[in-house]
Amino acid sequence: MTKPNPSPNPSAAILIIGNEILSGRTQDVNINFIAKKLAGLGIVLSEVRVVPDIRPRIIDAVNALRAAYDQVFTTGGIGPTHDDITSECIAEAFGVPWEIHPETFAAMEEKIGKENFNAARQRMATLPRGAEPIKNKASMAPGFSIGNVHVMAGVPRIMQAMMEALEEVLPRGAPIAMRAVYGIGVLEGEIAEGLTAIQNRYPALDLGSYPFRQAEGNWGVAIVAKGTDVPAIEQAIAEATALIAGLGIEPVPGEPT
Amino acid sequence: MTKPNPSPNPSAAILIIGNEILSGRTQDVNINFIAKKLAGLGIVLSEVRVVPDIRPRIIDAVNALRAAYDQVFTTGGIGPTHDDITSECIAEAFGVPWEIHPETFAAMEEKIGKENFNAARQRMATLPRGAEPIKNKASMAPGFSIGNVHVMAGVPRIMQAMMEALEEVLPRGAPIAMRAVYGIGVLEGEIAEGLTAIQNRYPALDLGSYPFRQAEGNWGVAIVAKGTDVPAIEQAIAEATALIAGLGIEPVPGEPT
Repeated sequence: MTKPNPSPNPSAAILIIGNEILSGRTQDVNINFIAKKLAGLGIVLSEVRVVPDIRPRIIDAVNALRAAYDQVFTTGGIGPTHDDITSECIAEAFGVPWEIHPETFAAMEEKIGKENFNAARQRMATLPRGAEPIKNKASMAPGFSIGNVHVMAGVPRIMQAMMEALEEVLPRGAPIAMRAVYGIGVLEGEIAEGLTAIQNRYPALDLGSYPFRQAEGNWGVAIVAKGTDVPAIEQAIAEATALIAGLGIEPVPGEPT
Repeated sequence: MTKPNPSPNPSAAILIIGNEILSGRTQDVNINFIAKKLAGLGIVLSEVRVVPDIRPRIIDAVNALRAAYDQVFTTGGIGPTHDDITSECIAEAFGVPWEIHPETFAAMEEKIGKENFNAARQRMATLPRGAEPIKNKASMAPGFSIGNVHVMAGVPRIMQAMMEALEEVLPRGAPIAMRAVYGIGVLEGEIAEGLTAIQNRYPALDLGSYPFRQAEGNWGVAIVAKGTDVPAIEQAIAEATALIAGLGIEPVPGEPT
């Protein structure tokens, strides 16, 4: 399979493992956090999947994504309970034993106390052979990296600490810049033709058009240019600004988020 | 390929088409809205994918998901601009022509006015052959259904109106009930063994354990039982309640969300 991402920047996928997202019980916030961190590292997030806590579903998704992308980030399913099966599934996906990680075992036993370090908690010190723990300040149980797969907690605060630890060691790409201009009252259908022409003049950029509605009820369009060539991005946004002004509407420069 | 969802309820997948989610510019709220609606219809959401606005990526994902699940819901990419390519990709995925839908064309032309109904806007009246428009009050351009694939807007307010229109016509499954009990101060490692025993006694239920942190900084665990057998769910939650009480902690019954 060829890598589906044509950019020279490293590519990445996120795999969210969690029945609670699929049932609607929980509003996911992990995708957006990781997406922003990756953008800052110059890593192009190319796919996200959410799958339930079912062994073959996790294994199949991990294997599909690690073959297709440079880096894979998983969240969820690394706690001590019966529905936490990510770690053993990753071992199976990589075809390696799932075994006590002595250093992690010793560190957790010391912190929790021998009498409370029960079988359930010991599962959190059991990792695929060859995994490197992702040490972090939010949890005594670590995440881990194996090959190009980084396995993190599902609880946002703990995941964020793990992602911040990873940030220090991940390979980076050329910074991906983003600029935006807003047209309040602009309808997409009025600027579509002009935007196509701009996109055609800057084929290396990713030019997006996003309709929005403000709290006050006004509709508008955000035009966002993204890529690694900052002068081209600024030129494209200048042209989009002129396009909006040409409708007799005052363009609003702004942050892309 | 066998259907990966073992439940007798209909299965579903969501496909989010949108660079803005992958870049981190936008926090997705569509997955959660659709997930809750599906749960209410007794339809089991079994997978979510997010892919960029790239033709082969959309086509491959649509074809993989529509083969694997009973219903597929897509969001994003049906506006009038150059980056809105979902509709033509769906036509290609189904191997049918992408052509003017006369009824939609006439309705849009009447509302927008002939002089403003330009080529870009006419693209929104161009649908895969055989598609049924999803009429809704939020947008004059409809979404559409073709086969088991339902194609909706990415703007949450418009998507929600389309999902509410679909709700009336989708086949339903047995209602999926959910009950929860909370243990403030409970650590997952203390109840993991007991929860495994409960899950083993109720194999048809989906018993989940979700650690959380309250705004005041207290940690706790939510135990959630889900399934179609309400008496079994209530029994399992009663046993989980006793498990928490056995730690000397007062269990808090509660809504699952």
